[in-house]
Amino acid sequence: MSSSTFAKKTKIAAILAAAICFAPAQLHADMATLASWNDGPAKTAITEFVEKVTKEGGPDYVAPDERIAVFDNDGTLWAEQPMYVQLAFALDRVKALSNQHPEWKDKQPFKAVLENDIQALANSGEKGLMELLMATHAGMSTEDFEKIATDWIETARHPKTGKPYTEMVYQPMLELLTYLRDNGFKTFIVSGGGIEFMRPWTEGIYGIPPEQVVGSSIKTKYEVKDGKPTLMRLPEIDLVDDKAGKPVGINSHIGHRPIAAFGNSDGDFQMLEWTTTGNGARFGLLVHHDDAEREWAYDRKSHFGKLDKGLDEGPKRGWIINSMKSDWKCIFPYACEQAAADK
Amino acid sequence: MSSSTFAKKTKIAAILAAAICFAPAQLHADMATLASWNDGPAKTAITEFVEKVTKEGGPDYVAPDERIAVFDNDGTLWAEQPMYVQLAFALDRVKALSNQHPEWKDKQPFKAVLENDIQALANSGEKGLMELLMATHAGMSTEDFEKIATDWIETARHPKTGKPYTEMVYQPMLELLTYLRDNGFKTFIVSGGGIEFMRPWTEGIYGIPPEQVVGSSIKTKYEVKDGKPTLMRLPEIDLVDDKAGKPVGINSHIGHRPIAAFGNSDGDFQMLEWTTTGNGARFGLLVHHDDAEREWAYDRKSHFGKLDKGLDEGPKRGWIINSMKSDWKCIFPYACEQAAADK
Repeated sequence: MSSSTFAKKTKIAAILAAAICFAPAQLHADMATLASWNDGPAKTAITEFVEKVTKEGGPDYVAPDERIAVFDNDGTLWAEQPMYVQLAFALDRVKALSNQHPEWKDKQPFKAVLENDIQALANSGEKGLMELLMATHAGMSTEDFEKIATDWIETARHPKTGKPYTEMVYQPMLELLTYLRDNGFKTFIVSGGGIEFMRPWTEGIYGIPPEQVVGSSIKTKYEVKDGKPTLMRLPEIDLVDDKAGKPVGINSHIGHRPIAAFGNSDGDFQMLEWTTTGNGARFGLLVHHDDAEREWAYDRKSHFGKLDKGLDEGPKRGWIINSMKSDWKCIFPYACEQAAADK
Repeated sequence: MSSSTFAKKTKIAAILAAAICFAPAQLHADMATLASWNDGPAKTAITEFVEKVTKEGGPDYVAPDERIAVFDNDGTLWAEQPMYVQLAFALDRVKALSNQHPEWKDKQPFKAVLENDIQALANSGEKGLMELLMATHAGMSTEDFEKIATDWIETARHPKTGKPYTEMVYQPMLELLTYLRDNGFKTFIVSGGGIEFMRPWTEGIYGIPPEQVVGSSIKTKYEVKDGKPTLMRLPEIDLVDDKAGKPVGINSHIGHRPIAAFGNSDGDFQMLEWTTTGNGARFGLLVHHDDAEREWAYDRKSHFGKLDKGLDEGPKRGWIINSMKSDWKCIFPYACEQAAADK
């Protein structure tokens, strides 16, 4: 091969290499990747926002380091009805541990759980809930808890659909996470749920690694037991990552103010407020559960995922109210697959 | 072009593309990137560890997701003599704020600071230090504090060298951070220093973004003041990220057990212990300050960065004691540049 031919081929190869190196991002950044989103105001708002913050030289350009997007989990990335998944976990754990605790038969709120007495459980209020959480989430090492949570999530099934909880995630949101990451965003979960309950499975399901999960937490203590270093989970609240606790958790764990926030309930109000009142282009979206047929319909009066203030004030603040019914073509991955197969 | 020629060219282009895509990592992974490290036991231990955990199919292979490396900051990445940089910041802040606090003239430990009375300051002990920290680090918004810290670090100078503190970093450690990242590691700071004191400059100096900085913290509170959302810094300790607090901070912020840890004092003992007692290949290194000529020489009796237990027990645990004198060709970037220019 003559040297000029070689030079030419090398140049072609370099161009092709560049094209191939960048191809995945370009392909995914296409609107087509939001395949389960109907053309409509929510999808348009998302893609317009992403296009403007990624347009180099444009007035709204945001450098990749600052492209931080935060997502609530329960009701935003996966279903939270008929109850929070973590509460189902706690109730199952009470049942599993009950033979080590004969006293629970006569002691509320444990008695209510063992007798499936929902009314008595509700009557035990926040104090009762906290007792359940501490009895099931504390008193073991972080490694033991991780194993307990992992084993449970692999075998537990949603009471209505019979599917694993990890299949009760929203396909349009999975596509959105990928779309944002393909556009240089770093995606975080910021959930009222327990940080160590979520971390074992967020990477596999959402592509979000443990270090990008922010959640409620209890304190831990480092100690060396029989020569083995251990982090013990203490029955003491560290952070309640909900409402005004969400900006606190974001600041502690992320250290940037996000430019985009996605939630579904009034527990996410302050997270969206903190995100969207920063300088420059900002984005807030609330998933509105208005699809009783394909998921659940609830908002102002719901026990889990109450959306009241967000519906009233969100639109005035420029937040997108995302209708599950009209903005999403399909909801759960298995339903989206079925719809595709039926075509 | 015939289709078979096209296919062949496409294949060649793909191979070249793959080679070019991966070239940067391969080039940097070369030993030559640890240019300021002398050939010797520390450098050999580092490169052997990195080679074995990145060797796909090898017995010690670690997937990139789990390649977490944690670094102490004071005395490990930058100089901590004659005092912690953050303490210098606190003392400067007391002086800057003193005309708003006429009462400090007669009140310890503030009086000691204003009179440069080191002995009285030392006598005020941990309680005095905490008072200084709270008076200078709390009571403002996170955004105001970020500006204060950023302004200070840009103008403050090291009392011995007259250099900006951000130039008092260790060139061999900068190379090590790059080398690890080029080999798929995610690098974190885990420091006893304040998380919000470090975050404004860690990305520029070390290439470590805010979300990968773990440090001591005070509590914050979210509130909306005159319609403006704010995170206020409260005079209340959240986490002391030192000694047994380091594994706690690692678990809270990172959620993985690291596979490599780098420190320099007994405040890092538990971090190295937690890291190196996990399953599979692990690595621990303690920077030993034994170079009075080019930096400082101190260990067992030092006020800042005392290294006692680490020197006794570290080698038994397989930790590398890194001699600044013999393992590093040069220490500060300006000295390394000068040495290169002199050649």
